Amino acid sequence: MVQLLVKQESKHWINVATSLSTELAATAVERDNKAGLPDIEIQRLRETGLLPLVVPKEYGGIGATWAEALKIVQELSKADGSIGQLYGNHLNLTALAHVSGTLEQKERYYRETAQKNLFWANAINTRDTRLKITAEGENFRVHGVKSFGTGVAIADFRVFAAIQDNVELPLVFIIPKDRAGVASNQDWDNIGQRRTDSDTFTFYDVLVKTDEILGYPHPPDGAFSTFLGIIAQLTKTYVYLGIAEGALAAAKQYTVTQTKPWITSGVDSATQDPYILNHYGNLWAELQAAISLADKAASQVQQAWDKEVNLTFKERGEVAVSVFAAKAFATRVALNLTTGIFEVMGTRSTGSKYGFDRYWRDLRTFTLHDPVDYKLRDIGNWVLNEELP
Amino acid sequence: MVQLLVKQESKHWINVATSLSTELAATAVERDNKAGLPDIEIQRLRETGLLPLVVPKEYGGIGATWAEALKIVQELSKADGSIGQLYGNHLNLTALAHVSGTLEQKERYYRETAQKNLFWANAINTRDTRLKITAEGENFRVHGVKSFGTGVAIADFRVFAAIQDNVELPLVFIIPKDRAGVASNQDWDNIGQRRTDSDTFTFYDVLVKTDEILGYPHPPDGAFSTFLGIIAQLTKTYVYLGIAEGALAAAKQYTVTQTKPWITSGVDSATQDPYILNHYGNLWAELQAAISLADKAASQVQQAWDKEVNLTFKERGEVAVSVFAAKAFATRVALNLTTGIFEVMGTRSTGSKYGFDRYWRDLRTFTLHDPVDYKLRDIGNWVLNEELP
Amino acid sequence: MVQLLVKQESKHWINVATSLSTELAATAVERDNKAGLPDIEIQRLRETGLLPLVVPKEYGGIGATWAEALKIVQELSKADGSIGQLYGNHLNLTALAHVSGTLEQKERYYRETAQKNLFWANAINTRDTRLKITAEGENFRVHGVKSFGTGVAIADFRVFAAIQDNVELPLVFIIPKDRAGVASNQDWDNIGQRRTDSDTFTFYDVLVKTDEILGYPHPPDGAFSTFLGIIAQLTKTYVYLGIAEGALAAAKQYTVTQTKPWITSGVDSATQDPYILNHYGNLWAELQAAISLADKAASQVQQAWDKEVNLTFKERGEVAVSVFAAKAFATRVALNLTTGIFEVMGTRSTGSKYGFDRYWRDLRTFTLHDPVDYKLRDIGNWVLNEELP
Amino acid sequence: MVQLLVKQESKHWINVATSLSTELAATAVERDNKAGLPDIEIQRLRETGLLPLVVPKEYGGIGATWAEALKIVQELSKADGSIGQLYGNHLNLTALAHVSGTLEQKERYYRETAQKNLFWANAINTRDTRLKITAEGENFRVHGVKSFGTGVAIADFRVFAAIQDNVELPLVFIIPKDRAGVASNQDWDNIGQRRTDSDTFTFYDVLVKTDEILGYPHPPDGAFSTFLGIIAQLTKTYVYLGIAEGALAAAKQYTVTQTKPWITSGVDSATQDPYILNHYGNLWAELQAAISLADKAASQVQQAWDKEVNLTFKERGEVAVSVFAAKAFATRVALNLTTGIFEVMGTRSTGSKYGFDRYWRDLRTFTLHDPVDYKLRDIGNWVLNEELP
Repeated sequence: MVQLLVKQESKHWINVATSLSTELAATAVERDNKAGLPDIEIQRLRETGLLPLVVPKEYGGIGATWAEALKIVQELSKADGSIGQLYGNHLNLTALAHVSGTLEQKERYYRETAQKNLFWANAINTRDTRLKITAEGENFRVHGVKSFGTGVAIADFRVFAAIQDNVELPLVFIIPKDRAGVASNQDWDNIGQRRTDSDTFTFYDVLVKTDEILGYPHPPDGAFSTFLGIIAQLTKTYVYLGIAEGALAAAKQYTVTQTKPWITSGVDSATQDPYILNHYGNLWAELQAAISLADKAASQVQQAWDKEVNLTFKERGEVAVSVFAAKAFATRVALNLTTGIFEVMGTRSTGSKYGFDRYWRDLRTFTLHDPVDYKLRDIGNWVLNEELP
Repeated sequence: MVQLLVKQESKHWINVATSLSTELAATAVERDNKAGLPDIEIQRLRETGLLPLVVPKEYGGIGATWAEALKIVQELSKADGSIGQLYGNHLNLTALAHVSGTLEQKERYYRETAQKNLFWANAINTRDTRLKITAEGENFRVHGVKSFGTGVAIADFRVFAAIQDNVELPLVFIIPKDRAGVASNQDWDNIGQRRTDSDTFTFYDVLVKTDEILGYPHPPDGAFSTFLGIIAQLTKTYVYLGIAEGALAAAKQYTVTQTKPWITSGVDSATQDPYILNHYGNLWAELQAAISLADKAASQVQQAWDKEVNLTFKERGEVAVSVFAAKAFATRVALNLTTGIFEVMGTRSTGSKYGFDRYWRDLRTFTLHDPVDYKLRDIGNWVLNEELP
Repeated sequence: MVQLLVKQESKHWINVATSLSTELAATAVERDNKAGLPDIEIQRLRETGLLPLVVPKEYGGIGATWAEALKIVQELSKADGSIGQLYGNHLNLTALAHVSGTLEQKERYYRETAQKNLFWANAINTRDTRLKITAEGENFRVHGVKSFGTGVAIADFRVFAAIQDNVELPLVFIIPKDRAGVASNQDWDNIGQRRTDSDTFTFYDVLVKTDEILGYPHPPDGAFSTFLGIIAQLTKTYVYLGIAEGALAAAKQYTVTQTKPWITSGVDSATQDPYILNHYGNLWAELQAAISLADKAASQVQQAWDKEVNLTFKERGEVAVSVFAAKAFATRVALNLTTGIFEVMGTRSTGSKYGFDRYWRDLRTFTLHDPVDYKLRDIGNWVLNEELP
Repeated sequence: MVQLLVKQESKHWINVATSLSTELAATAVERDNKAGLPDIEIQRLRETGLLPLVVPKEYGGIGATWAEALKIVQELSKADGSIGQLYGNHLNLTALAHVSGTLEQKERYYRETAQKNLFWANAINTRDTRLKITAEGENFRVHGVKSFGTGVAIADFRVFAAIQDNVELPLVFIIPKDRAGVASNQDWDNIGQRRTDSDTFTFYDVLVKTDEILGYPHPPDGAFSTFLGIIAQLTKTYVYLGIAEGALAAAKQYTVTQTKPWITSGVDSATQDPYILNHYGNLWAELQAAISLADKAASQVQQAWDKEVNLTFKERGEVAVSVFAAKAFATRVALNLTTGIFEVMGTRSTGSKYGFDRYWRDLRTFTLHDPVDYKLRDIGNWVLNEELP
């Protein structure tokens, strides 16, 4: 009985996501053109109740597993890559205090997210070291600059990483939207993921309280405390998969309704063209392979998550290898698909009004996050030398 | 408790298969060279108890699901493709009377297979119409020729398809090894799958009893009665996957122990070469994608199997599409892998003593069974036009 | 001596093209953004003297061979695909009366193009049959609609094809810019080739004089009279190659000056990264293969052109096969390259200000002109069955 | 007139090669099976007069350019890869004294090769340092072991490299067939290139005279003296191309005469199957691209060769980059083609009697000579950093 209820719940949220995805797809071309703040997207996410998806039930959340949550990310990404990235990031961040906060922080942020229906965003990227944090009395002050603040402008909770003088590891902290001194430079203008508003942010002596610093003064150690990074990699993968699914569905719609049979094809309809059918078969089969691989990784992620602090470095490493494989493979398949759809649609499908190039632009942008080659090298090092990444 | 016992049982048979696979791998190069009758292979299969793997427990068998059984096929195929094909065919055939026999035949063949520990083989291929069957009194006589009799020479139960005058659908029948008049032409000499002994067979007025004809006179109708063909396609897929896994494991062993670092690589060991690592990562990731896709299809196959006669044509068609995708994708990945392993091993890996070409030769041979292009077309026709294959 | 002079001349025009290409590249991102009429581009082509490139010297032209002219198309296409398409079309059209006009038309149009430094454009596409032509006294009237009028709005000579009632073959005619009744619908808004202004044109009872109809009343017959179609296919190929060369050069410039080495790469500079170097090697090698294949086809085209009316259908067919191969191969290589450059540049290369997506958008658009699959089928039919396309 | 004569001569030798290639193709499967000494092949090369192909006319040779000679290598390689490798090596070696010998050696070896119609072979591979050379009076003695002595057992002139104590650069020397103390270990047993008899050789105090050592005591310096290494790389490339051409021709012959149309193809003949036609188109187009790229490199090689000692390191490096690109690209295309031909032939084409796997086995073996990845890296380093290999 319990099992069945759970399944119905899961199905409910899939339906909510499908419905929101369809709604957002209808305006995707227009929003891609306009770029700017994803205001409407976040508002609709809030209204549909999807924000506390991975917040455990005990804190008032929906309590979805990661395996379930990532399918929702995939569903929303069909509409557009920006909403997928924003929502995926959000989900990861709502669990941030769980892995690297104190027990109090874990509780507080889970509970508050659910109660107040809050949206999270971040600019953590540790390769960008321009943001400095300094102790001031019992609190801290932050100044400097941080890039790639995806959705931060619109977020209720904002997560950043800043560097202390002479300390290697950055401090990660969470501040509310109304905290003074954080300014967007409104400089996000990109070929893809245009509605993520991934601006650079400037900090003018921004106050950070001690209990806003994750795990301060002793952040948790061990494999679990950095496990969210692996989940974040897989979350990106599901965005790629969703974009590709969206592209294939859009192409199908176009071929069925618009594409003319080629003059020497000998068939009456493009839907009977042997090459077009073969291409659809191939694009679909490759996409299913990528989805299957990701789903397998998601179930490994979930098992690892359930071990919590008992997760070993070996287990973490093996999940990482699976996630890297899923990500590298999805990257190639999705890029190939978003270029290939034009060949099954034909010349007129390049009209700007259809905006079919946005799938490739979103993917091409979002898949550059870190180089596929180094992911493959890490996998190879595990396969050949049994060394964990 | 029951669940756990089942899991332990499943694990037991995997271990048996792994052990046999390792044993057979040790002689694979030599057996590939010699070709000829797979006598030792079938003897060892018999001794290890793997023959009645999919015979339900109620008839004295092991009662493995298809999903479990196909992983065993994969495991054995690591040793060599021939044993994979022989064993895969055998498993399919032990269930043949279940889908297209009478209830009596289903019971009899299941029970006898388990009790007597029997091995099955066939030459059914309906494109070869040279075998004729004629009524003679209350029995039948068969004469003519049939090709691709994989393992028939050594099989306890032999399955063939023959044509009646002026009847389109062939009759499929099962005869025991000692039935007089069936002669192998011993003409199997192929570049790959060399130990399958897939000879042409000549029939000299061979007696076939009425109750040896499957489902005679009224073979079962409906989606389930031809569902074994779909399972057979997926079984082949697991042979491909096993061959590819075997190839990758062999390559790893060679690279780690034999390959010299390239002169301008700047690394001390081939196992640190950035390109070799990247290739291993890529070959492994693609193989995992193919395995995941097949595993997903296997679980769909199992669900469909469990519906038995309630299986609808729509359900059957959707499983077929998944199986076709798994097969087409595995074909490409495995061919690429068995060519690519040489690049991570280097020049001296082409010595005949290693026999590393056998992976490609086995795959190249066995993947030609039916054209990938038409499988992709059928998938495309379902994706685009929602027509079942 | 003569030979040397010719070489110097050829070199001169290459230099002119290189110089103009560099100049146009500087504004390419901006012009791509703006789309609209390619006014500045055509003006600069006119000023540099490149318009009468293939007009024979006897008519006052530069007298370049097709083999030479196509390298100029490639050079200009490095700047952007739109200028490549406009100029390539123009070159083809200046020779149109040579292949399918009367001797008078050939002379008149060659001479006038050179003397007045004229620019040509067209909307011939015979698949679009909405443009009708009707006799009116000793002249003709044209009405209806024609799409894909690339550059027509700005052209001095405009070429169209229109259909007569109950006649299968369309009439092709050339009218001057000032001919009344031809109106652009200014509806070109595409993801790529944005500066080609390929509008739909509406004709309001437009006058066409008899001697403006190509070859009227008896257009030339034979292989040569349709040979320009083959040249046009190869001309497109050189646009693809130029776009790809431009993309690779832009990527190189970016990698050398902007790309940061990856954190785990162990190298100080992205230009020493083993994977980045390997990718550059691969992208370049494939591009050279595509260029070599096209250059070989261009020399065959030139030999065929020199035979003029003596060209046989067999010779024409064999050149067509070579051209199809060059086009199909360039399509794949160039699409792969324009997607791949981002991987050797890194995350920040997706900034809109760089406009690096325009290479892919231009290619993706222009390579859909006709399906690669049918070109490959035609080649295969020649390879296997020795039938000409 | 002179020009025409030259062309006729060139055509004559192409015809001789074509005729010998056809003759050898007829026995290729059988010879591949048997492996062993390529006695018949070298005898026929000798009889047809092709041995002194690149010996200049002034020394009594045919005087072909490298560009011409490599097309002959390609032609012979269609028959089988072993003859291609043996003959290609031979051609390179007949010019060895030209680049790195004294003037006397250049003259002597050119003249003797032509006069006595001699065949050359070698085991130079400098990575194998087990062969030692020691001064003894005014001569030298060699002992130790050397692997990969392709065709040495049957060669009139045999070239080896051996190491002196405490000297880095090896000495390269040429000894006649009857020199005592050189013994083949008859240990060549490989999956491909089976008729090259690339045995390991053991040297029992073998006498080497001072004037048999190339360029002793002062081997020539400069870019030209090592240029033969580049030519050798391109020579290998033409062997790959020839093998691939042979494979495609064999496949065509089979498809046209043997392949049955697929049951659901809806066509009467396999030669009308849309996918088979498309594959032939694609395989052919890619092969033509590889050939065009190699031919372009060959013309660059020839220009560099003609500069002789005036060749600069920069010029040598640029030719090397072109040759590397041709080799890397041909490797990929030819491997793809020799795997792909089976898909256009069908199931029964894997019969051992056809021996169609030998194309892949020969290529797979011979393309491992040095890693494609490092060739691509070297190209990339030139493209990106303008550093010569």
